[in-house]
Amino acid sequence: MSMETAPIWIAGEWRQATAQSTFQATNPATGEALSKRFPVSQWADCEAALAAAVLAQTQLRSQPSERIAAFLEAYAGGIEAAAPHIVAAASLETGLPIAPRLRDVELPRTANQLRQAADAAREQSWKQATLDKPRNIRSYLASIGPVLVFGPNNFPLAFNGISGGDFAAAIAAGNPVIAKAHPLHPETTRLLAEQAQIAATQTGMPAGTLQMLYAVGNDDGLRLVADSRIGAVAFTGSRAAGLRLKRAADEAGKPIYLEMSSINPVIFLPAALHGAEALLATELAESCLAASGQFCTSPNLILLWQGPSADVLLEAVAAIFRERAPQPLLSFAGLEQLDAGVAALVGAGAQWIAGGHRIETPEASGFRYANTLLRATATQVLAAPHALQREVFGNATMAVTVAGLAELEAILNLLEGNLTGSVYSAASGQDDEIYNRIEPLLRQKVGRLLNDKMPTGVAVSPAMQHGGPFPATSHPGFTSVGIPASIRRFAALQCYDGVREDRLPAILRDSIANAKTWRSIDGEWVRG
Amino acid sequence: MSMETAPIWIAGEWRQATAQSTFQATNPATGEALSKRFPVSQWADCEAALAAAVLAQTQLRSQPSERIAAFLEAYAGGIEAAAPHIVAAASLETGLPIAPRLRDVELPRTANQLRQAADAAREQSWKQATLDKPRNIRSYLASIGPVLVFGPNNFPLAFNGISGGDFAAAIAAGNPVIAKAHPLHPETTRLLAEQAQIAATQTGMPAGTLQMLYAVGNDDGLRLVADSRIGAVAFTGSRAAGLRLKRAADEAGKPIYLEMSSINPVIFLPAALHGAEALLATELAESCLAASGQFCTSPNLILLWQGPSADVLLEAVAAIFRERAPQPLLSFAGLEQLDAGVAALVGAGAQWIAGGHRIETPEASGFRYANTLLRATATQVLAAPHALQREVFGNATMAVTVAGLAELEAILNLLEGNLTGSVYSAASGQDDEIYNRIEPLLRQKVGRLLNDKMPTGVAVSPAMQHGGPFPATSHPGFTSVGIPASIRRFAALQCYDGVREDRLPAILRDSIANAKTWRSIDGEWVRG
Repeated sequence: MSMETAPIWIAGEWRQATAQSTFQATNPATGEALSKRFPVSQWADCEAALAAAVLAQTQLRSQPSERIAAFLEAYAGGIEAAAPHIVAAASLETGLPIAPRLRDVELPRTANQLRQAADAAREQSWKQATLDKPRNIRSYLASIGPVLVFGPNNFPLAFNGISGGDFAAAIAAGNPVIAKAHPLHPETTRLLAEQAQIAATQTGMPAGTLQMLYAVGNDDGLRLVADSRIGAVAFTGSRAAGLRLKRAADEAGKPIYLEMSSINPVIFLPAALHGAEALLATELAESCLAASGQFCTSPNLILLWQGPSADVLLEAVAAIFRERAPQPLLSFAGLEQLDAGVAALVGAGAQWIAGGHRIETPEASGFRYANTLLRATATQVLAAPHALQREVFGNATMAVTVAGLAELEAILNLLEGNLTGSVYSAASGQDDEIYNRIEPLLRQKVGRLLNDKMPTGVAVSPAMQHGGPFPATSHPGFTSVGIPASIRRFAALQCYDGVREDRLPAILRDSIANAKTWRSIDGEWVRG
Repeated sequence: MSMETAPIWIAGEWRQATAQSTFQATNPATGEALSKRFPVSQWADCEAALAAAVLAQTQLRSQPSERIAAFLEAYAGGIEAAAPHIVAAASLETGLPIAPRLRDVELPRTANQLRQAADAAREQSWKQATLDKPRNIRSYLASIGPVLVFGPNNFPLAFNGISGGDFAAAIAAGNPVIAKAHPLHPETTRLLAEQAQIAATQTGMPAGTLQMLYAVGNDDGLRLVADSRIGAVAFTGSRAAGLRLKRAADEAGKPIYLEMSSINPVIFLPAALHGAEALLATELAESCLAASGQFCTSPNLILLWQGPSADVLLEAVAAIFRERAPQPLLSFAGLEQLDAGVAALVGAGAQWIAGGHRIETPEASGFRYANTLLRATATQVLAAPHALQREVFGNATMAVTVAGLAELEAILNLLEGNLTGSVYSAASGQDDEIYNRIEPLLRQKVGRLLNDKMPTGVAVSPAMQHGGPFPATSHPGFTSVGIPASIRRFAALQCYDGVREDRLPAILRDSIANAKTWRSIDGEWVRG
């Protein structure tokens, strides 16, 4: 390998990868390849990472939680200090704007998540320490083992494998992390890892706690997931890739947390829409076009009653779609998939209202697609439920008109699992009867149910559920956003039965140093 | 179907099954078939159960938790009142003694679990209601949907699909249950279901909340597991059957909780054993022979230092094994598998110390196997780790001697996931150095770590972990024994974002009726 290829971060040091090939990122705004080369690791790198992670796991067990918290805070500070470099690289590699997005929203969110994870690591109540003193049986949520994190393409900072929500949760739970960079933003990932290393050194984290590879072959990815040394896997990305990893993990009996696909239905009930068409059109269009529709929670399916209000709303949305300049998509592959997805929906019967084509003009270079609005009837959807329920990742949305409640109920019954479901209903109570009928159907299909708002905002709140039934994720009981709940994914329930007190983890001993930790002692929750 | 075939319990009524074949239970103490016939249901019965369960799920959502609690308590009382009939049937079908086992231990434990589940259903803190009032985002652990429960052969009451721990947890979480009886004890299951029905009627539970089938074909079992209407699956049984169901559930994206196999290593450190050989031999033999070794936590692998103490201990265990009359095994298939398992271990190099053959004499009829002790060296195990790590379900145990710490560490590194791991070490501290070396290795391989005691007692304690890493179970973060933790398996995390207060579940409203419920409100845990 040439020395110009970026090194990987393994076992506490930056070293040349064992690689036979390299790749480059692309600037989506221009379509041009960026010059820096990054390695595609062979198995030897994975093996080295696994060995180092196992060692780090053992060492982490004896570290105080305070050290983990201090690392997370130092890292958050480091990311903020290096913000100009990081957001510049991220914008170049993703086409996402520095302002208002990367610098003003995503980077602060990333630092905020790390700090919330630090608080949780320190506070420890999420470990649910449970003491049965008379029987001397004690248990808590302990670290699960090395966590492999695959970050997605659409959040280069807040979901990055080496800095995002899964990373923060896995570290807060006391696990080493092996991060697989998303190959669309390797330089961004490298800059983040650099800050992680500075913070880790500063706070004395065991070498091998944090490791980062840029890319591995498909087979090595599956082998990593199934390796007996891996404790759990987190993946955010496409359904096809997620299902491949899931199969490998399932076969090996490994917990895997996937966030894969979601069409995020938005339902306008009749009285809510009537008279508010223009306002709701703006709200809907903004949500659909945010980040070129490349949020996991972008509304892909709009459900509304057929009639004049629907026509007015959709024409207003189409007008905004036509008027607003399309922003670049993250990759050429994404552009191709979006084009193919729209073609498939049209092939299955959807009608074209706005957009539906690539933008290829000298003025608008890069990976751009016209903002696209499609329309279908409930009859069409019910006749081809799979074809018309396809997630189209990007700035395209489909509206489906229903003739009445029965059709809406039939569609909701056919829905697969989703991250979100939104219902707009009139404050007057006129829509309440319909709401009460459809709520139980929608409720069981979505992780987060919204009233009168769009799903694209995902607050980092302890009450957030960014998850949902399959295929949105692989288990409806967990969330990937929201601390401390997201930490629980990377924990194993470990019980000590008759174990001598000096051999117990600190959190299970009779008295506890941290006065803030809630524990269940002999059936009562007590603090400190 | 002949009218003599026992009816199944579907959609609130006892009805004749749609079946083409029937089966009978067998008395393991005599090997004779019992006269009553039970149906093997075809898909039509499964379909009817699924439809009724979906309806019940919707109705349950609007029931107060108090009703669920009242049902569980009424059912516990009903089981106690019908105890003589139930334990007589169970003893006939399983060969397990009425006293001290079924009447004195297992039935009280079953009633106790139902009452603990009732308390949890009423108290609701396990739902982890989390309110973010400023943002009006609220979430809690809600019901997951109809739960399919496959009970095992070895606990006809306490793990029965219609009365055991999984049943109690699934109901307490607010889900309907479709119970699949274990075909070795259908009459016991019928008698339990009868009590469930009386309690359900008495307390006004929706029809279809509780349903019970005796048996289904293998393909229909897999189809049931994968059906989109099922919320989650619980299975306790063999590894082979568990893995088949897991594959079907994984493919369909369904949460499945499996308790499959465990060899439950027991490690005697040198100073602990020295001088205590006779005492520990008795303790070990009692644990190995309890229920003819047919507990999930029976010690199958004994690890100890080679030398005179090991020889003395093993000879004393062998003497007890030879002297104690073998109790019947649960089935002829179990006897065959035990015989084959022992033969496989011997084939892989284990040495025969006691037993190792079937008992076929006129005095001891039924399914009996001589209490069996095998012995191997660490060198042998390290050369054939898979063959010599095989779970042998029944009254057979293998001891493995190690030449030193390095061999023990090598064996622990090769261990698959287990429910339990026990370490006996000297109170003097002489074994502490070894303990500290092996504890981290053993800790990550087992759900419950014990000091100086045998693993066969599984207390129904909130601090219990009856679970562990694969292949002991399918996820190390959950337990199947211990309330409320076991309930969490059957819950989905549901979030309400901006939802109007009168539309929220009671537990998420600003004020709560139950003064005992803990909730997290704006970052602080508060009660009531």
